[in-house]
Amino acid sequence: MRVIHSPAQMARWSQRLRQQGKRVGVVPTMGALHEGHLSLIRRAASQNDVVIVTVFVNPLQFGPGEDFRRYPRDLHRDVRLALAAGAEIVFAPTVAQLYPAGFQTSVEVGRLTERWEGRSRPGHFRGVATVVTVLFALTRPTDAYFGQKDYQQALVVQRLVRDLRLPVRVHVLPTVREPDGLAMSSRNSFLSASPRRRARILYRALCAGRARIRAGERRSGRVVSTMRSLIRTQPSARIDYVAIVDAKTLEPRRTLRGRVVLLLAVRVGRMRLIDNLLVEVS
Amino acid sequence: MRVIHSPAQMARWSQRLRQQGKRVGVVPTMGALHEGHLSLIRRAASQNDVVIVTVFVNPLQFGPGEDFRRYPRDLHRDVRLALAAGAEIVFAPTVAQLYPAGFQTSVEVGRLTERWEGRSRPGHFRGVATVVTVLFALTRPTDAYFGQKDYQQALVVQRLVRDLRLPVRVHVLPTVREPDGLAMSSRNSFLSASPRRRARILYRALCAGRARIRAGERRSGRVVSTMRSLIRTQPSARIDYVAIVDAKTLEPRRTLRGRVVLLLAVRVGRMRLIDNLLVEVS
Repeated sequence: MRVIHSPAQMARWSQRLRQQGKRVGVVPTMGALHEGHLSLIRRAASQNDVVIVTVFVNPLQFGPGEDFRRYPRDLHRDVRLALAAGAEIVFAPTVAQLYPAGFQTSVEVGRLTERWEGRSRPGHFRGVATVVTVLFALTRPTDAYFGQKDYQQALVVQRLVRDLRLPVRVHVLPTVREPDGLAMSSRNSFLSASPRRRARILYRALCAGRARIRAGERRSGRVVSTMRSLIRTQPSARIDYVAIVDAKTLEPRRTLRGRVVLLLAVRVGRMRLIDNLLVEVS
Repeated sequence: MRVIHSPAQMARWSQRLRQQGKRVGVVPTMGALHEGHLSLIRRAASQNDVVIVTVFVNPLQFGPGEDFRRYPRDLHRDVRLALAAGAEIVFAPTVAQLYPAGFQTSVEVGRLTERWEGRSRPGHFRGVATVVTVLFALTRPTDAYFGQKDYQQALVVQRLVRDLRLPVRVHVLPTVREPDGLAMSSRNSFLSASPRRRARILYRALCAGRARIRAGERRSGRVVSTMRSLIRTQPSARIDYVAIVDAKTLEPRRTLRGRVVLLLAVRVGRMRLIDNLLVEVS
């Protein structure tokens, strides 16, 4: 197990690993590891010779009013958990190391980022695409692992990998949930007891939407209404968006067929939470 | 010698070359090869095990009113010249191959592209940065070669390579000139006899500027005036910009010291020509 802070040292390591013909799995994270991350690391360890976990709270993907400063950070704990889950290297550069003075290059994905999180968080996906490109260049993965919980992010990464021809296989793994259904998120630790209980409404709404589809409803608007009404029963919840979209393009679907995803973003107290559910409409 | 059109095939070839530990030099071009390109290929051949010349007229770096359609194309001639200069592979994808349907990712360099060519040709450097990133991913060079004639472009490529941590050494080689001083350019073939003669004014102006600096002038404005006045003696020439800038940041310099570059863009008849000269101010 090795913790690497220096990008140059990381690049030398990954170059050596690739020259030795190793299959290298990378799990990019912002730290504050939870079961969702650990499931990615375990999967990566089962499919690769070496697993690198990157821990970097990326300022580029936070908006001005967002929680960059108070985002939870505990590298010792992250290293311990990553090791136990099968990682061999933790790459944890500082902001100044990854973006030294003069840094001015960005990577942007187009249409896929125009809606949903992209609209609510301007610049967010540019930050994600940029840091993923840089981290992939430094760690040179054969395989990279992302959680489905950030569904749009996973599509954005897949798109940029395809478009920029990065030699990486991107794996998107199922969302890991708390026993009551709440999607695991590093930000859940910000929720005190009462908002934590109210946050269950997100997954309940997704399940209610899926149930209506399974019961035969094919009009997207009706299913969205069901979800919205349910969320509104929770007075402290404010809806940012609720949508049913094509699972590949993220364009809204009026009539439901094929693979769709139920997407939502809801504020509960001061926290903004997102979640989603993939549904195969027969 | 091998001409490759398919990006997937190019990626397989370059992966194999790198696995064999070869040093791979890449010379990105838009074809219509001239002595400038050939000097890059020869240098690459002298420093690498394998040289790949890419030939791709990149639509992303042309503006709406520009000459993408009539840009000169002659792949057979380019292949013959590249081979004679020491290239082993010519990679010549079509637009649909490099940017298939759904392509939507772009790479952008910030401050460095705000002035000069970036201001005169909006989107140009985004196109350059994007195609260079894609071509590097497909050809995996250890070394890449660019001409100093496109000075700002060379800085942009160096910047993106540094920022995105691409494992490539970027070489910038001196501008190759016609006997009368005109910088070699694929677009020179568009110049009929009379504009061709008038185009000599660009290099003359650069030399006049350098001469004033060498004679002791350190006020940038004075040197620029000399250059502008000289260009204005040629009635068919219209100045786009004339500037003396820091060689690294491209920011204008009021008082000249250190490494500066004399930059100009001038329209001669229907053609827009650029040129530059590096000057070490003692």
